[in-house]
Amino acid sequence: MRALNWNGKELSLDPAYPTPAADKSTALLRVRLAGICSTDLQILRGYMEFRGVLGHEMVGDVVEGPRELVGKRMVGEINFACGRCSFCSRGLGRHCPERRVMGILGADGSFAEYVAVPSENLHPVPDSVSDEEAVFTEPLAAAFEIVGQIEIEAADDVLVLGDGKLGLLCAQVLRLFSPHVTIVGKHEHKLKFLKRLGMRTALLSDWKPPQADVVVEATGSTSGFKTAVEAVRPRGTLVLKSTVAESHSLSLAPLVINEVTVVGSRCGVFPPALEALAQRSVIVTPLIEKVYPLADGLEAVAHAGRPGALKVLLRS
Amino acid sequence: MRALNWNGKELSLDPAYPTPAADKSTALLRVRLAGICSTDLQILRGYMEFRGVLGHEMVGDVVEGPRELVGKRMVGEINFACGRCSFCSRGLGRHCPERRVMGILGADGSFAEYVAVPSENLHPVPDSVSDEEAVFTEPLAAAFEIVGQIEIEAADDVLVLGDGKLGLLCAQVLRLFSPHVTIVGKHEHKLKFLKRLGMRTALLSDWKPPQADVVVEATGSTSGFKTAVEAVRPRGTLVLKSTVAESHSLSLAPLVINEVTVVGSRCGVFPPALEALAQRSVIVTPLIEKVYPLADGLEAVAHAGRPGALKVLLRS
Repeated sequence: MRALNWNGKELSLDPAYPTPAADKSTALLRVRLAGICSTDLQILRGYMEFRGVLGHEMVGDVVEGPRELVGKRMVGEINFACGRCSFCSRGLGRHCPERRVMGILGADGSFAEYVAVPSENLHPVPDSVSDEEAVFTEPLAAAFEIVGQIEIEAADDVLVLGDGKLGLLCAQVLRLFSPHVTIVGKHEHKLKFLKRLGMRTALLSDWKPPQADVVVEATGSTSGFKTAVEAVRPRGTLVLKSTVAESHSLSLAPLVINEVTVVGSRCGVFPPALEALAQRSVIVTPLIEKVYPLADGLEAVAHAGRPGALKVLLRS
Repeated sequence: MRALNWNGKELSLDPAYPTPAADKSTALLRVRLAGICSTDLQILRGYMEFRGVLGHEMVGDVVEGPRELVGKRMVGEINFACGRCSFCSRGLGRHCPERRVMGILGADGSFAEYVAVPSENLHPVPDSVSDEEAVFTEPLAAAFEIVGQIEIEAADDVLVLGDGKLGLLCAQVLRLFSPHVTIVGKHEHKLKFLKRLGMRTALLSDWKPPQADVVVEATGSTSGFKTAVEAVRPRGTLVLKSTVAESHSLSLAPLVINEVTVVGSRCGVFPPALEALAQRSVIVTPLIEKVYPLADGLEAVAHAGRPGALKVLLRS
């Protein structure tokens, strides 16, 4: 099959990558659409030392595997867990120490014609949800993860730092829990979309750190943490969504002095995201910047890496 | 009065520092004993840009001020709050943005013959608690603050990093909530004291980071945070007690990947600490390394600054 393969040095479009196999607990999906995420770009800079087919955002049709799934249009949770450890038994397979992660750790991903996914990770896509919406299930689930970890109250002043793809999704999700959400970013054209949805937006250059109850750091940059610390009130909560792999110089003293709680937040389960897409309570398609055929995958990845790029998709 | 005065450049024993005044809401205390804390030593390196009389740990007798307090032996909470703001109205005067802090921010401290403390900050010391115990009320309250912020369950594996004064207190407090507390440090002679109390101890050199449910970082060093991140399990809680003012190089990615919650933790209220001292559920006097008269205050501060020093006290 055709696949975008990362060998640790070079990303290449392999025309004859081995097609993965299905079995009684693993489904083979024909990928319809896959999304390029900043994590993919970080992997190309060495993150996770991953080798193989990139990609963890996707929607596809099951073509082989468990009979009851074949023919269904589905999305797949990306953490392939052991199912037996103490994390798995508490429903936290996404923290299973033995896990493989689609396109990130020990499992080939979705920038390919086919991808293999454990059937227990799959969720059917409601008919009312288009492929272009369904491909956002994974990043949207990551945004919903926040409200699975901390309680947002309707009176809370919530601030989202970063108008990248994840920031735009987080702001919309948080708005379902508090009307007092502000998103701060550097790009007027990105913020405009949320402004049209009736949300408060601010350009970083015109903005002064407030004393927010909850701050979500989704800038993807090393400077975001410092800004977030300045913007959260004493005893407030700072949610970290950016996986900034590089070390950078920080003082943690303000966290201690102001007794701030910092919550690291990564992947989420899919049902709340699929429900929000079906109900149109979160709007995702304006985040699509361009759709490339898989054959132009290298160009697509280069496009996704441009500063300020929104979501770039690959059609298999 | 005699006082240890820090002018930003030099610490000196001033024989004629102005004695503070009492009024209807502020008591004047004749200091009996004061404790030297690592924060005092940090102030001498520039922390908080404080100027004036150092010291925030103390026990003393009220000699002037509200009539009902005069003659009582008391300890004083160190945050002098406005009493009117949103933090004060929620009982969080220690986060009042207008607060002064004894010997740390805008208020003279306890390394003196006399100290002025708002009467609402004062708590009487039970007769069964000696001066040498009562002077630990403030750091012990800081240790109890942890259990006011997070819930420790009896099944939790709890790890305390650092066998300094605060680490030794934190470990004892946490042991009241879970029997599974281990303290890790560099000094066998300090750990021995907790070992005698039946606690699990480990020398850092012989120790491998576990996957603890709760890790308390009380090393006071920049390397402590990295060790703490390695020692906490996914979805676990890391409590930061060290105020390490200096910036240092860190990667926060493990917090995101493992969805760790980091809780900054500073000062606490005094009642739980006074109760623990009265009940002898926490043992503090073995932490006393030496008691100096205030007249030898400069020597005492130098002693407190020696690597590995335990609690050095000043008797006024």
